[in-house]
Amino acid sequence: MKNSNIQKPVVLVIAGHDPSGGAGIQADIESIANAGCHAATVITSLTAQNTNQVIETLPQEPDSFRKQIKLVIEDMKIASCKIGMIGSIKLIDVIKEELSKLNIPIVLDPVLSSTSGQTFTNKEMCEDILSSLFPLTTLATPNSEEAKLLSQATDLNSAAKSLLKHGTQAVLITGTHEATDNVTNSLYTENDAPIEFHWERLPETFHGSGCTLSSRIAALLALGNNLNTAVEEAQAYTWNTLKHGLKLGHAQSQPDRFYEK
Amino acid sequence: MKNSNIQKPVVLVIAGHDPSGGAGIQADIESIANAGCHAATVITSLTAQNTNQVIETLPQEPDSFRKQIKLVIEDMKIASCKIGMIGSIKLIDVIKEELSKLNIPIVLDPVLSSTSGQTFTNKEMCEDILSSLFPLTTLATPNSEEAKLLSQATDLNSAAKSLLKHGTQAVLITGTHEATDNVTNSLYTENDAPIEFHWERLPETFHGSGCTLSSRIAALLALGNNLNTAVEEAQAYTWNTLKHGLKLGHAQSQPDRFYEK
Repeated sequence: MKNSNIQKPVVLVIAGHDPSGGAGIQADIESIANAGCHAATVITSLTAQNTNQVIETLPQEPDSFRKQIKLVIEDMKIASCKIGMIGSIKLIDVIKEELSKLNIPIVLDPVLSSTSGQTFTNKEMCEDILSSLFPLTTLATPNSEEAKLLSQATDLNSAAKSLLKHGTQAVLITGTHEATDNVTNSLYTENDAPIEFHWERLPETFHGSGCTLSSRIAALLALGNNLNTAVEEAQAYTWNTLKHGLKLGHAQSQPDRFYEK
Repeated sequence: MKNSNIQKPVVLVIAGHDPSGGAGIQADIESIANAGCHAATVITSLTAQNTNQVIETLPQEPDSFRKQIKLVIEDMKIASCKIGMIGSIKLIDVIKEELSKLNIPIVLDPVLSSTSGQTFTNKEMCEDILSSLFPLTTLATPNSEEAKLLSQATDLNSAAKSLLKHGTQAVLITGTHEATDNVTNSLYTENDAPIEFHWERLPETFHGSGCTLSSRIAALLALGNNLNTAVEEAQAYTWNTLKHGLKLGHAQSQPDRFYEK
């Protein structure tokens, strides 16, 4: 048994489940475990999906969902939290109320649709995410399309400024969907100039890259890294999981979160 | 991108979800990933639990559950399967029908109750598991209490013989619950003498050791190992995850499935 002082930090994950194992809590569990942390996962919505399509989203009832979060946070010391796909407006208030009790870094990946095009979030949910969850958020990690949709802005600088006004301490906008040769991700904070990160664009499309990135950042924050280091190292890890991606189904590839094995 | 010939084998997991991350599909995902395979996970039941107690089990509706399995097995080449906690008799028929289409090794861990004492399975479910799932099973991995309860036998040799008659090719009965100095696990097959494995007994109780073991065996079978090798190596791995166990909540310890990190 390890000395109780050197236990692994626990990252609370609040996200959807994807049976194919590319995205959702499985992506989070693997990305967090690979970083040397332990994930505790509360599922917002079950889904029926494969590497090609999402055909059904089944959100949990708020009462069961709350019970599951409460049991975990009353039992374990939580070091950080990652929020992913939510799937139902009823769950947003529960998340807000339960996370307000904890004073921990929160990474919010506002998953508005799947890479294959399924929409998870309507306008009312977007507004509720902004008003209820952004004020609790340390870092939001929208892709460029999600950033524009959430902020109603047409360019990324304006989108980032608008999202920061809703209370998140920082915004990392990922640029995979932009028509650029390389992928540019940009980290925005209130007072500093944006920091740009450039990554070689890979030819495939992937199922679960955003989940992998955001949960890795949450794990690196749980381990005590500052935000800039966590954001930079998590991108490098995620890029490697994509570079070594697996083609396990007929459509999108999956990140290999244990590419060393 | 890896050559398509060296993709990781996919292990289909059909099991419950435990938000604390000690047991259920998270145990399976981690144990399988650590073996160098990829898990595709279809959830039978959500639960509200922590390291101390299971307070609610929420089985999926059979139609949604079937849709989720079908989408995965139609999209991915499945190399082996692990079945864990089921939680509802309605799901047993779906599992039987969908798995009958696949010709793969199946490891069945008949989780009848949690280590903390919550019962998941009534008498009718036990009978249905025996008549519907045991004929498809390559290896069943009950603990000694589950073996006796399922078979209605009072000693382990008779229990194993009875379980083999229901159609499984082999039975591994784990001995953690027996009052012995060391833990003895026994592998029974139809024609060979039982093989005993002896492990140093650890002082703690654990949340998720059975899930870790059974999914590791399924992964080792997916990688092409024969049954005896898979059973022996999976026990060694599981014992190490327990030896390096984590005390993350107030009650039971959790296996550290990435104890190397």
